[in-house]
Amino acid sequence: MPKSDNSLENLFNPESIAIIGVSKDPDKIGSIIYSNICENKFPGRVYLVNPKHKELYGHTVYESVKSIPEQVDLACISVPAPIVEAVIDDCIEKDVKAAIIISAGFSETGEQGTALEEKIAQKANKAGLRILGPNCLGMMNPSKRLNASFAASSPLEGNIAFLSQSGAFCTAVLDMSLDKNLGFSHFVSLGNKADIEETELIEYFCDEKKVNVIGAYLEEVANGQRLIQIAKKTAKPIVVFKPGESSEAKKAISSHTGSLAGSAETIETAFKQAGIVQVRRVHQMFNVMMAFSWSKPLKGNRIAVVTNAGGPGIIATDDIVDSGLKMAEISQTSKKLIEEHLPSTASVINPIDVIGDALAERYKLPIEVLAEDENVDAILVVLTPQLVTQIEDTAKLIINTAKLSDKPIFPVFLGGKYVSFGLHRLYDFKIPAFQYISDAVDALSLMYKYYKTEENLAKKKSLDFKTLRRKGEYELEIAAGTKETTTALPEPMVQNIAEEFGIDTPHQQVVTTVDEALEFGNKQYPVVIKATTEDFEHKTEYRAIHLDIHTDKKLREKYFELEELLKEKLRIPNPKILIQEQIQFKEEFFLGSKRDGDSDVYETEDIGFGHIIALGKGGIYTETYKDINYFLVPASDLEIEDALKQTKIWKIIKGTRGQKPLAYKAIINTIQKVQKMLLTYPQIESLDLNPILVTKDRAVAVDIKIFTKK
Amino acid sequence: MPKSDNSLENLFNPESIAIIGVSKDPDKIGSIIYSNICENKFPGRVYLVNPKHKELYGHTVYESVKSIPEQVDLACISVPAPIVEAVIDDCIEKDVKAAIIISAGFSETGEQGTALEEKIAQKANKAGLRILGPNCLGMMNPSKRLNASFAASSPLEGNIAFLSQSGAFCTAVLDMSLDKNLGFSHFVSLGNKADIEETELIEYFCDEKKVNVIGAYLEEVANGQRLIQIAKKTAKPIVVFKPGESSEAKKAISSHTGSLAGSAETIETAFKQAGIVQVRRVHQMFNVMMAFSWSKPLKGNRIAVVTNAGGPGIIATDDIVDSGLKMAEISQTSKKLIEEHLPSTASVINPIDVIGDALAERYKLPIEVLAEDENVDAILVVLTPQLVTQIEDTAKLIINTAKLSDKPIFPVFLGGKYVSFGLHRLYDFKIPAFQYISDAVDALSLMYKYYKTEENLAKKKSLDFKTLRRKGEYELEIAAGTKETTTALPEPMVQNIAEEFGIDTPHQQVVTTVDEALEFGNKQYPVVIKATTEDFEHKTEYRAIHLDIHTDKKLREKYFELEELLKEKLRIPNPKILIQEQIQFKEEFFLGSKRDGDSDVYETEDIGFGHIIALGKGGIYTETYKDINYFLVPASDLEIEDALKQTKIWKIIKGTRGQKPLAYKAIINTIQKVQKMLLTYPQIESLDLNPILVTKDRAVAVDIKIFTKK
Repeated sequence: MPKSDNSLENLFNPESIAIIGVSKDPDKIGSIIYSNICENKFPGRVYLVNPKHKELYGHTVYESVKSIPEQVDLACISVPAPIVEAVIDDCIEKDVKAAIIISAGFSETGEQGTALEEKIAQKANKAGLRILGPNCLGMMNPSKRLNASFAASSPLEGNIAFLSQSGAFCTAVLDMSLDKNLGFSHFVSLGNKADIEETELIEYFCDEKKVNVIGAYLEEVANGQRLIQIAKKTAKPIVVFKPGESSEAKKAISSHTGSLAGSAETIETAFKQAGIVQVRRVHQMFNVMMAFSWSKPLKGNRIAVVTNAGGPGIIATDDIVDSGLKMAEISQTSKKLIEEHLPSTASVINPIDVIGDALAERYKLPIEVLAEDENVDAILVVLTPQLVTQIEDTAKLIINTAKLSDKPIFPVFLGGKYVSFGLHRLYDFKIPAFQYISDAVDALSLMYKYYKTEENLAKKKSLDFKTLRRKGEYELEIAAGTKETTTALPEPMVQNIAEEFGIDTPHQQVVTTVDEALEFGNKQYPVVIKATTEDFEHKTEYRAIHLDIHTDKKLREKYFELEELLKEKLRIPNPKILIQEQIQFKEEFFLGSKRDGDSDVYETEDIGFGHIIALGKGGIYTETYKDINYFLVPASDLEIEDALKQTKIWKIIKGTRGQKPLAYKAIINTIQKVQKMLLTYPQIESLDLNPILVTKDRAVAVDIKIFTKK
Repeated sequence: MPKSDNSLENLFNPESIAIIGVSKDPDKIGSIIYSNICENKFPGRVYLVNPKHKELYGHTVYESVKSIPEQVDLACISVPAPIVEAVIDDCIEKDVKAAIIISAGFSETGEQGTALEEKIAQKANKAGLRILGPNCLGMMNPSKRLNASFAASSPLEGNIAFLSQSGAFCTAVLDMSLDKNLGFSHFVSLGNKADIEETELIEYFCDEKKVNVIGAYLEEVANGQRLIQIAKKTAKPIVVFKPGESSEAKKAISSHTGSLAGSAETIETAFKQAGIVQVRRVHQMFNVMMAFSWSKPLKGNRIAVVTNAGGPGIIATDDIVDSGLKMAEISQTSKKLIEEHLPSTASVINPIDVIGDALAERYKLPIEVLAEDENVDAILVVLTPQLVTQIEDTAKLIINTAKLSDKPIFPVFLGGKYVSFGLHRLYDFKIPAFQYISDAVDALSLMYKYYKTEENLAKKKSLDFKTLRRKGEYELEIAAGTKETTTALPEPMVQNIAEEFGIDTPHQQVVTTVDEALEFGNKQYPVVIKATTEDFEHKTEYRAIHLDIHTDKKLREKYFELEELLKEKLRIPNPKILIQEQIQFKEEFFLGSKRDGDSDVYETEDIGFGHIIALGKGGIYTETYKDINYFLVPASDLEIEDALKQTKIWKIIKGTRGQKPLAYKAIINTIQKVQKMLLTYPQIESLDLNPILVTKDRAVAVDIKIFTKK
């Protein structure tokens, strides 16, 4: 049976559950699952399965899932790994539609486990049985009062769908959420992903009404292109924590899950282009999920600060500016209203200082006025626990104001022991609140980046590589030359392809007489002459290259010198000489690309992210300054320009400090041509155009290297 | 009376206190101070002063401090600002040695308040009365059971001396510390710093036995050079939070305290050179103070991780590598011991995964073994709250092990509600513990940077600018030309000074005939000719500059062209022409300097940080890549090399990818010469050598600009 769109319904919304492997010992995992399901008062039917018992916990125990008299929607399997296959066979026979395999001992343990896991997954797939896991914590759906996991607690109900490749990460986030009253619509531990994986789940959650935010902890992303398509389409924020950026951590991932992780640049670029909110810290992930879950949307970057202390106002200002947000310029009307309300020593320039002796009431008017001010997009309310500070009353006041406002109002109660009473009151009323200024500002900044990208995505035409792909002139030759290992494309073929896509390269000609050389030189001075690559690998070393030739006299002289060298030293009887125009460049640019996934990456979306293009400062400073930005193929013209704007060299190319601009349009053209090339010949595993010499009117690729691989 | 070394004794260790301004209303600040002093059972004598009452709270109330029959060591003043001066007069008459002025209404309110504050400070200084404040929260010394403040709570006793320019920041840190049981030796709110300021306090705390760590929140640092000297000398960590890096925050500071803040680069450079631990976040400051206060010292950067979950192990690895620490390579012996102890599915490669079903006991052996491993400098113990996890028992086990080990052992209990029980147990036993991995790693990384700098400081000769200063040849001319406003040094004087210090500049000559030019050219080709600056401001615009002259023919041609231009267009009858060798450079370097403080900065240490030198990539990319690093004058050769190593261009200059090195020693020499120049002529307010053209054997400053100011 093929996968159908609603094939996850049986997993998340079952009417009947079989717990296979429930034990007499209440501390065993099977029994904990049973107890979690009971404690949450799951309203559907629950069946216990264990051939060793007839009755447990006051329930009939069935010998096998097959002996259950009624329909079973979901099986929770917690039996030793070697028995799992037989249990799955039973489930298939019983026509169970979904199973959670809690049991460990599969692909995470090595080859044998991987083989067993694959076998089970194939059987299940053929029968239309969907599998979560194996080697997972389970799944929870609080709105259905369902906790099919062996977690030590149950999540509260809310609008966040959370999925995690690490079960322990689930338990940590769950514990955090209980402290702050944050609720979830779904809570899923992915385990080894034998069948159900992150992309399908995220797509499912995008269509689920009760989901407002999707959070995911992923150690690897397999179906790159598909994830991007889903993220670009949805209007829901997707927050992803993808660890493993350092090579040391990649080693740890591989020893932990046995899988490979994508490159940090590819992931970061993909997430940025698709509007996925990438987080790098546990508390950052938690805070931004809370912000998206509870807050009104943030539509701009102008933040107003109301504080009962000057110092923390300064700290907030630093943090706001540092994170790319702006201090709001409060309107004159607002200023006047606030000024009338506050004591004369208070500051009414943002940050607004209501002074240390402020009672709760004094916060009210400034917050209300700012909530109506068109120059303000969000309000940060900072409280420090001073002598007269009314911690809980201020919390209550913020709760009332925030509920009525259509802007984010983020309270920060800076402190520990005593402010925690105020913070917990705020959490009780679903106000995203923070103990530290930097946490609140970070959450606002991530929200702003998200809404900004969403806005941009709406403007951009959605590009589909399938419609962009076309046949190339050298299709057959390229395909024939592509091997299982990385292979350099020969120079003449590189030239052919460059010509096919109209990439600007230096004018050049292979000549065998000085007269031919002079004829070329007279059209092109200054010129360069050199031995051809076939003849010579290390031209510079042997002085087989001459630059800066401006005159017939010098050309004649250098031509004979080179000819002699080739004839005498290398014993080439009729040497060929390459004459090339010398580009009088002003700036060096760099363009490179690498492919994620194999050469079929544009045939199916399930195997990788495709090509990533790197662009930036070229020449000897490429490595030194790493002034490089990235985008994923296919990118729209707007996306390409966005990527360019974020390199530092772009300012110089566009003309700065009274300098005339260089040929920036020619650079954009070249990038578009290279993108076409990659979509035409996905066999290209990597390429480098370094440097691209940029003059006032041209962008000339003087050195192109292309490598192919299957 | 001059300030004496023990003049702060009366402030921190008084035997008798007068509370001036205690009120009938127990909610007034004076009464709160009284109540704070009583609640902590201060063992000394306490006198209440208020002319309106005869008795309050069962105590005699004196009309004035003068009517108190015995000696008063410390006066706590909380009366309206206009009365403060009279109260201070009384204190002087009574020979009180220290006063805390809590009252606000002074320099923070404007000119009038500033005048009043200065008047009071002068009187007090003359009489030998030390003043803390005005406009402050007060001071606490828990070991003396003294809380002379109006804070809502009292700190616990410990080994951290904390001072803050913001009273609210005090209250926030205090509240945090109560949540985590962190104790203080001193807790000081600086207020307006009319007399006592941060540098004197820090110096005092450096000498106090019960102080192990110094923490300071400072919105401005006035006595830069002195702070550096103190920090370089002490073996105690000094942690400083200095907000106000953004220009927006500087505005907020100035409206808040009325003072100017030093440049972010100067502060950062000074702190780095002096081994001051700079923090940028409130929780970061708190965490690192806790780490220094409670932990064993960290002597290296090799961190071992023990975790009950793979995912958080990966996150820890990322964080460790990101923050400049290293994952320890655990010794074979340790590996074997741990391997024997753990289940077969556990990972014994760092991060060591004790697996999700670990009870407390399973953590024990790995931690103990790693604590003995010579390849490990610190241990991060990560716990996630899984089904069987024994949160409090694991905490107990860590407490016992950490107390016996001489390495930092930092537990991270990742979660919220349930892990907090374990965390609080750890805090109770003074184990620096964390809710998030990134916080623990950040604290370790700051500790490591601190110990590394301390190690380096021990190696470096301590430089004193006083001994380095010497007389300059142009002392009188420079002094005479220095004005109240910024003034450019004339070109000939710039040349003179460059020669005085032996700075390499291009060979050049001013000529008036073509024969003179040819004579110069024949010695120096290639050359450049241009109009002199006196004649011409914008040489390039008018083509009054000619480059790349290699031959007599071209020199003759260009000479006459330029002469004609000057004669005809500018009507200069006998034009002077500047002929200069053209430097065939390989790289462009940049050197700049700015002075913090005025031209007397090297005469006294109390007015600023002195000169900061900036160095890095020069030429058109200076602004683009900001590949610049800094050091403060005077710096040792080692410090200068450290600063150079941290620029990216240094690698290219030292020779990279098979390229031969450029004249890096010549660059170091130039920097040393410029440093001497600045110490000789402190009137130099700023200078720029950009570019310094670097060849294989020279570093030539082709463009030097020097500005002076008083």
